[in-house]
Amino acid sequence: MSVTDELLENARRYASGFDKADLPLPPGKGVAVVACMDARLNPYGVLGLSEGDAHVIRNAGGVVTADVIRSLAISQRLLGTREIVLIHHTDCGMLTFTDDDFRAQVEADTGVRPEWAAEAFPDLDADVRQSIARITASPFIPDKSAIRGFVYDVKTGELNEVSRTR
Amino acid sequence: MSVTDELLENARRYASGFDKADLPLPPGKGVAVVACMDARLNPYGVLGLSEGDAHVIRNAGGVVTADVIRSLAISQRLLGTREIVLIHHTDCGMLTFTDDDFRAQVEADTGVRPEWAAEAFPDLDADVRQSIARITASPFIPDKSAIRGFVYDVKTGELNEVSRTR
Repeated sequence: MSVTDELLENARRYASGFDKADLPLPPGKGVAVVACMDARLNPYGVLGLSEGDAHVIRNAGGVVTADVIRSLAISQRLLGTREIVLIHHTDCGMLTFTDDDFRAQVEADTGVRPEWAAEAFPDLDADVRQSIARITASPFIPDKSAIRGFVYDVKTGELNEVSRTR
Repeated sequence: MSVTDELLENARRYASGFDKADLPLPPGKGVAVVACMDARLNPYGVLGLSEGDAHVIRNAGGVVTADVIRSLAISQRLLGTREIVLIHHTDCGMLTFTDDDFRAQVEADTGVRPEWAAEAFPDLDADVRQSIARITASPFIPDKSAIRGFVYDVKTGELNEVSRTR
């Protein structure tokens, strides 16, 4: 039995106790969260989110890429979110390599060099600020008035604020 | 008080009861989940995931974009995940518009036409298959042997399988 099969057993249990059939499409709290994909960072646990509350956007690093701008543009323009919460975290894998090394290693292994940056970063706080800067610089995000950036500490469970637009 | 301030109150409670200080960086279950950002879809609840279990990658639609390939490449190459679970869902916002309309509307409102596709889609099952096809076609994902694609039903809480690579 694969791990996915185990997860599907959990999904059957979730469905059997399901009582959230009438949630509307737009997020009830009007918030979009952008967080790292890291396994130790559970945005539902940390922020106390329930089904229906918030959009949750995640990738390697929690960095603001073109795809995050796409998702935030859809979130704000079509589904009415207004506040943005960015979460990086301590001990992030993105601190352990450089883009040059990653792209060269992929080229060495596969013969093809990625056309995209891996988005590794050497400084957590600076990358949170960079992520806010990318949103602020984008013409596609209508509401930039409530963007707040945090670093989650995987050793203590604490969420520490780095920067905010208001 | 903003909604974010409310979420920060929850974060303080989470930290005060925190007992997960010793989780390793690589996901314990060796799985990466790619899901839509939709507020009603809670991958932790549905799949029974806990802190430390799995990478969770999310964007508008749960579609496989270049940024998802980046995240999956890092997940597999640097952090050892091997199984991939894709989750789209019923009543998705991406079913309600077209890329042409979205990009034209953004251009009309801001003067700038996005250089990216919005990734809207008219058919859920077909887009799950398309997402699997994009992973299968990528040279940057080392292990494509265990990719499974699902549609989550927001009315019943059920996870229904669409396609799998094994």
